[in-house]
Amino acid sequence: MSMYKASVPIFEIGLNALSAILDKAEAYAEAKRIDPTVLLTARLFPDMFPFIGQVQSACDLAKNAGARLSGIDPPKYEDNEKTFAELKARIAKTVTFVKTLDARKIDASADREITFPLGPNNKGQMKGADYLNHFALPNFYFHLTTAYDILRHCGVEIGKRDFLGAIPMRMI
Amino acid sequence: MSMYKASVPIFEIGLNALSAILDKAEAYAEAKRIDPTVLLTARLFPDMFPFIGQVQSACDLAKNAGARLSGIDPPKYEDNEKTFAELKARIAKTVTFVKTLDARKIDASADREITFPLGPNNKGQMKGADYLNHFALPNFYFHLTTAYDILRHCGVEIGKRDFLGAIPMRMI
Repeated sequence: MSMYKASVPIFEIGLNALSAILDKAEAYAEAKRIDPTVLLTARLFPDMFPFIGQVQSACDLAKNAGARLSGIDPPKYEDNEKTFAELKARIAKTVTFVKTLDARKIDASADREITFPLGPNNKGQMKGADYLNHFALPNFYFHLTTAYDILRHCGVEIGKRDFLGAIPMRMI
Repeated sequence: MSMYKASVPIFEIGLNALSAILDKAEAYAEAKRIDPTVLLTARLFPDMFPFIGQVQSACDLAKNAGARLSGIDPPKYEDNEKTFAELKARIAKTVTFVKTLDARKIDASADREITFPLGPNNKGQMKGADYLNHFALPNFYFHLTTAYDILRHCGVEIGKRDFLGAIPMRMI
């Protein structure tokens, strides 16, 4: 077990699974003759993020946590995605970024204090391992799951295997 | 970073947060004169688990993963909860159980092969660290988030802090 194993591969597998789910959502919209924007802007309650925001946030958690644990500044994204293709490009960009991160630096970050923005005015501070276990991962999975839940609520035929993605599991 | 830090405290904080969310859901039902069963049986799509099933599954992931990583048999639950009070008792029982687990045994489980049931007929096998990172945690958060999403969809006023719970974060 290591900080790297508990972060970058999780982000990579989860985001690649999300990208494949986007393909299924896009195909569903086409098959049902639904304007893709209906799915992209769907939300579970009026003051929750729509689907686009859930995907953007999942990417942000991965890039921000990965960068902070490696001791570098996170890249900034424009948040201007409006189509499935643009969201898939954001996911691909994020996966490419987290794969460039220095595993040794992330592994050395467990006891280092991480400071990160909390909304527009506040900052949070946690030790690296706590930040990963109790902030980055729950938030990452929150947005990944809520993106999935929005599509399920809209009738897209996806299941737990789509959510988990290409995990290193053997069936026996 | 350790297998124990990446499992038991996460389950404990997440489940305690879920228990507090149940209190808010129960208070909401009472204030709005909604039959609690309406919330307890709400689901996001007909073939998804209802709220009760999401809470049961979150508990199961915690107790099963904790037990398997410690090398003991997971306790069996009856799955007969029908009220908020009964779900809160299941959560409390699960938190009490995972806190009894041997930290040294969990810490020694990263490379041990874990075999676990996958549906009624199959079994999955993964190394301990992979099982925790790529099966137990994503599934745990999946059910925790979907429980939250169902309540948000029903109008219960909860936010990200309710979801994260009592995490070791300092505001600066």
